[in-house]
Amino acid sequence: MHKITEIGMELDVLGENRRLAEGNRELLRSKGVRSVDMMGSIGAGKTALIIRMAEALRDRGLKVAAVAGDVTGEDDFIRLRNAGVEAVNCNTGSECHLDAHLVDHALEKLDLDNVDVLFIENVGNLVCPSDFPLGADKRLVLISVTEGDDMVRKHPDIFHAAEVAAINKVDIAEYMDVDLARVAADYRRITGKTLHEVSVKSGAGIDPLLQALEL
Amino acid sequence: MHKITEIGMELDVLGENRRLAEGNRELLRSKGVRSVDMMGSIGAGKTALIIRMAEALRDRGLKVAAVAGDVTGEDDFIRLRNAGVEAVNCNTGSECHLDAHLVDHALEKLDLDNVDVLFIENVGNLVCPSDFPLGADKRLVLISVTEGDDMVRKHPDIFHAAEVAAINKVDIAEYMDVDLARVAADYRRITGKTLHEVSVKSGAGIDPLLQALEL
Repeated sequence: MHKITEIGMELDVLGENRRLAEGNRELLRSKGVRSVDMMGSIGAGKTALIIRMAEALRDRGLKVAAVAGDVTGEDDFIRLRNAGVEAVNCNTGSECHLDAHLVDHALEKLDLDNVDVLFIENVGNLVCPSDFPLGADKRLVLISVTEGDDMVRKHPDIFHAAEVAAINKVDIAEYMDVDLARVAADYRRITGKTLHEVSVKSGAGIDPLLQALEL
Repeated sequence: MHKITEIGMELDVLGENRRLAEGNRELLRSKGVRSVDMMGSIGAGKTALIIRMAEALRDRGLKVAAVAGDVTGEDDFIRLRNAGVEAVNCNTGSECHLDAHLVDHALEKLDLDNVDVLFIENVGNLVCPSDFPLGADKRLVLISVTEGDDMVRKHPDIFHAAEVAAINKVDIAEYMDVDLARVAADYRRITGKTLHEVSVKSGAGIDPLLQALEL
C-alpha cells in the first residue's frame, strides 16, 4: 500500500473499494456464481492452478470462467483460453493489484448465467492485493517453494486477508533446499490454519484445496 | 502504483520522493559511496546476490554495507549480518516498496565514511519499486527462472526503470522448463540491452554483473 495515509485519502480509497466489492459479491451471488480471488507472487503458479482446478470442476459438470488480471499483456489470458477456460483479460495499466472497480467491468463481459465457478487471478504481487478485496467468496494466496521459506513471515498481511493458503511445487522442495515444515509452522502461528501443499504439475493436493475453497 | 491519479496526488508523492532521492544521491556521492538499488520479486535471490557480490568486493579490499528492506521482520537483515555484511534493517510497515525517505533514515544509521559500496535491497515486488527511485547510482532488477519466462513481458516498467537486469538460478532453467532465450529476447526488445545470466549458488556470471554495475 503506497503511503497516502498522511493526506487522509487511504480510508476513502479503501472504503470506495469495499463498497464496490460488496456490489460484485451481490451480483455474483444473485447469479449463483461461486468465486475465488487468487493472490500470489509472479511465478507461484496461479494460472496453472486455475487450469488444473477448472479441469477437475468441469469433470463434475460445472462451468468455469476466469478473470486474468495483469499489469499489462495477455499472456495469462491466452494460456487460460488455450486451456479451454472462458476468460476475460483485465489489465491494470500500472497498478500493482486488481481492484473491485476493474473486476466490476470485467464481470460485465462475462455471461454470468452460464458460469458456476469464477476464478479472479490477481496481479503477481504478495503485498498490495491484500488491501483490496474484490467481492469474491474466498481469497486464496498461493506461494511456491521457489520463493524461499521465509515468505510467510515476511508478508503476514496477505495471509491474514485470505481464508485459504497453499504452497505449490512441493515436489521440488528438497531440491530447492526449502524447509516446508518451517513455512507451515509460520502459517499456523500467524493464522491458526493449515497450509495446503500442492503440486500443480502432478495434481497432488488439488482435491483437498477445492474442498477448502468450498468448490 | 495505487490509483491516486484522479485526486491529483500522484505527482506530489512521486515528486517529493524524487527530491529526497536527490538528497540521498548527493550524500552518498559526497562520501564516495557507490550504491545499487536491488529490485526483484520475493525469492529471486536478492539477499544471496548481495552476499555473493560483497564477498567478491571484499576480496578487492572494498568495504560493503547493505540496507535490508522488507515489509516486516528481520530475516534478510540477519542473513546479511551472519554473512559478515554491515547492514541496517528497514521495515516499511505495510508499504510495498522502499522510498527515498525511509532510505534517508537508514543511511543515518550507517558510518558512511567507512563504506565503499552500498546495496539497498528493496521489498520483494516486481511492480511498485519502479516508481520510487532511492538515489542509488544504479538500479538492478533481479528475476529468477522459477518465475516463468513471461515475467519481462508482464512487467516492462521495472525493466525500463533499471539500468541493469539479471536472471538468477540459470543452472536449473532446463529443469524448470523455462526458455531463457525468450526472456532475454523480451528484455532486449523492451530495453535494447543484454540480460545478465547468473547463478548466485555457483557464482557463475557474478563478475560481469559487477562490471555492469560499475563496481
